[in-house]
Amino acid sequence: MKHLTTMSELSTEEIKDLLQTARDLKSGNTDNGLAGKFAANLFFEPSTRTRFSFEVAEKKLGMNVLNLDGTSTSVQKGETLYDTIRTLESIGVDVCVIRHSEDEYYKELVSQVNIPILNAGDGCGQHPTQSLLDVMTIYEEFNTFKGLTVSIHGDIKHSRVARSNAEVLTRLGARVLFSGPSEWQDEENTFGTFASMDEAVESSDVVMLLRIQNERHQSAVSQKGYLNQYGLTIERAERMKQHAIIMHPAPVNRGVEIDDSLVESNKSRIFKQMQNGVFIRMAVIQRALQTNVKRGEAAYVISH
Amino acid sequence: MKHLTTMSELSTEEIKDLLQTARDLKSGNTDNGLAGKFAANLFFEPSTRTRFSFEVAEKKLGMNVLNLDGTSTSVQKGETLYDTIRTLESIGVDVCVIRHSEDEYYKELVSQVNIPILNAGDGCGQHPTQSLLDVMTIYEEFNTFKGLTVSIHGDIKHSRVARSNAEVLTRLGARVLFSGPSEWQDEENTFGTFASMDEAVESSDVVMLLRIQNERHQSAVSQKGYLNQYGLTIERAERMKQHAIIMHPAPVNRGVEIDDSLVESNKSRIFKQMQNGVFIRMAVIQRALQTNVKRGEAAYVISH
Amino acid sequence: MKHLTTMSELSTEEIKDLLQTARDLKSGNTDNGLAGKFAANLFFEPSTRTRFSFEVAEKKLGMNVLNLDGTSTSVQKGETLYDTIRTLESIGVDVCVIRHSEDEYYKELVSQVNIPILNAGDGCGQHPTQSLLDVMTIYEEFNTFKGLTVSIHGDIKHSRVARSNAEVLTRLGARVLFSGPSEWQDEENTFGTFASMDEAVESSDVVMLLRIQNERHQSAVSQKGYLNQYGLTIERAERMKQHAIIMHPAPVNRGVEIDDSLVESNKSRIFKQMQNGVFIRMAVIQRALQTNVKRGEAAYVISH
Repeated sequence: MKHLTTMSELSTEEIKDLLQTARDLKSGNTDNGLAGKFAANLFFEPSTRTRFSFEVAEKKLGMNVLNLDGTSTSVQKGETLYDTIRTLESIGVDVCVIRHSEDEYYKELVSQVNIPILNAGDGCGQHPTQSLLDVMTIYEEFNTFKGLTVSIHGDIKHSRVARSNAEVLTRLGARVLFSGPSEWQDEENTFGTFASMDEAVESSDVVMLLRIQNERHQSAVSQKGYLNQYGLTIERAERMKQHAIIMHPAPVNRGVEIDDSLVESNKSRIFKQMQNGVFIRMAVIQRALQTNVKRGEAAYVISH
Repeated sequence: MKHLTTMSELSTEEIKDLLQTARDLKSGNTDNGLAGKFAANLFFEPSTRTRFSFEVAEKKLGMNVLNLDGTSTSVQKGETLYDTIRTLESIGVDVCVIRHSEDEYYKELVSQVNIPILNAGDGCGQHPTQSLLDVMTIYEEFNTFKGLTVSIHGDIKHSRVARSNAEVLTRLGARVLFSGPSEWQDEENTFGTFASMDEAVESSDVVMLLRIQNERHQSAVSQKGYLNQYGLTIERAERMKQHAIIMHPAPVNRGVEIDDSLVESNKSRIFKQMQNGVFIRMAVIQRALQTNVKRGEAAYVISH
Repeated sequence: MKHLTTMSELSTEEIKDLLQTARDLKSGNTDNGLAGKFAANLFFEPSTRTRFSFEVAEKKLGMNVLNLDGTSTSVQKGETLYDTIRTLESIGVDVCVIRHSEDEYYKELVSQVNIPILNAGDGCGQHPTQSLLDVMTIYEEFNTFKGLTVSIHGDIKHSRVARSNAEVLTRLGARVLFSGPSEWQDEENTFGTFASMDEAVESSDVVMLLRIQNERHQSAVSQKGYLNQYGLTIERAERMKQHAIIMHPAPVNRGVEIDDSLVESNKSRIFKQMQNGVFIRMAVIQRALQTNVKRGEAAYVISH
């Protein structure tokens, strides 16, 4: 059994294995032995893309799917996440996919439960399957990471994507640039260097825009004028390298971080990212269920 | 690929083909090649009957089903319906069923997306699968439309059913009568003529009641006394033609537009309509997925 | 067709048959002929455990599952439960699982509908599959009921579990003790006798804790101090009989009715209860669908 909660826990070898598995799955290999197993999707924050992507991945693997919407459940009765997962484990669930608003919600859980936890986003923390699908999309384009420059634009500080991607891309041999309003710079993120928007766009092989996370913070940055100052306008896109591509984790605020018409331009890989997400999640689920180890002892042993 | 958003886009020949397919499916023919494909049900307004009817239809066809409840999704993050559908398309969804409160929400969408959109009700607009199941139920009873009189009773103005059905029944050769409070007459609907309740009931082969849509408008029409003045009482039902039948799109306000006990009387086809709805939806999905054409170009082509 | 709404309607023979079927299913027997049938889960009150347990049971039987969340449906349009079930029946649903806040919501329904209703909890009434899984867990442990003492601790008066279990355990030959705050004693429940916490714990083979149902009543009983006065502390657990076991219907308020660390102690069967719940529900569904009888006549027959 293998959890996946952060990119840091994956070795470079493991990342490459996951990419290879995802590409095999994309080209039609679906013999996996997971048919009839149970996946539970626990989304305590709203999501269309990620939840459905996992659900499609699970169903393509032939699995049964339980969807738990965090607002209409026993969680309301004050049950802890730990007890919810132990319950799911008891009724036969094989793997749990969790999105939660709390940073590192998984930290104690992973050593306490018998089924793998796949992190689908924790607070301002990580979102490893998003990173993996980004990495897969870049690799499909360039067949390497070495020598590539990837710029990440926008709210670096509050973005799970910026955090995970900068680390893993650096590890894989790419150079990472950050760009965006100065109050959104993240001095703790040492896997990239800051550059102006224009400089970053012109020198990058991959221009990765981030979504302005209005629901996460009250920002001093005005949406009005954001596009011209920090976003990808048509004018800037025309100055991108000839082979360079545009990426975005979506959902896109069209006309805010990127010009509306660029979302589906010839340089955009935004919808290809979504497509790759399904195969990455299939690969991650397969990895999670490859082996199964047992948890430890009873919490308390009554003496007689 | 074939969308279905209004009855008007179906030729009479196509309607007859759909009825035949639905009847074949009802008699047990389920070999369709859709097993393993993905359907997404996007209901932005509450619904039991229509959503579950589509879900049963999809599952009987062997499809995988994604259910999106409009209130708990990324739509909250300001994503447009267009981007939601493009996302679903990217992750492998083959067909989208949509109910939306906005009239003609599908108007621009249908030329922009690569997967068929099946309209499950738009605002005060249309509800084509409801029309088709009504038409199927009438055809099962009378084996023809020519010469039949169908009266539609109630809130003609705000009813998706009245709009779609009057048009299609007229086209198929039936005569349509409208009846109900004068403020609910719809002068723009020219596919029927107004008549008094008693006159309509006595001369009809099909008496089709509509639900008072309390959630759609603040009405001056009092529910008290509605049954006696405009509804189908037992006394009126006894004056129906011997072979005439009662229909209602449901949910029924028992005792408001129809006497409680008539809902399951020998003349009622109300639950048969629901039964037929599943087979009509199976037929519509099969039609939608028969062929697949590709959408056009990128929205913007960067010049180099 | 067989409904299941209360434990009282099951003969002792039938209970034993259900336990045997559940144990057969648990040891891997899944040949049941229900593949492709449709189950609808109607939960008008929030629930994780019971809903997912039914959903896993249904999917393990190969059934298709429809989930209706009581807050986002046509029920909002004023439709009665009767009409909802008749609708589901019409669109092809084979069995309905219902949780409802109203006591005995099923009372008139069961004689009016054509598909079996499985009660997953009614108000302060019964919860028969919970009783059956409790009984199964006890039987797995002791291979008999005769001569066992089972104590039920806590809010006897508002508990569906206390009501169902006391009756059925008495019927099966066990002795039942109740314990807890005096204002939660239930004088109408004559299937057990009241005892002090310490006396009950020391003399029992099964110590069954109940959850404090904060959402059901404004209680004068303070949670502070509840554990020491009425709950299962480590100290009390150490005085249990050597072979005695701890049970709880869950979700557990850890540290309120039971010491946190006892939930997963060697005496606890709490997660085993959840595991058994799936097999009990599979057995109950199989029983429900064994035969199919037809409902009666039309509600009203128009005279000509």
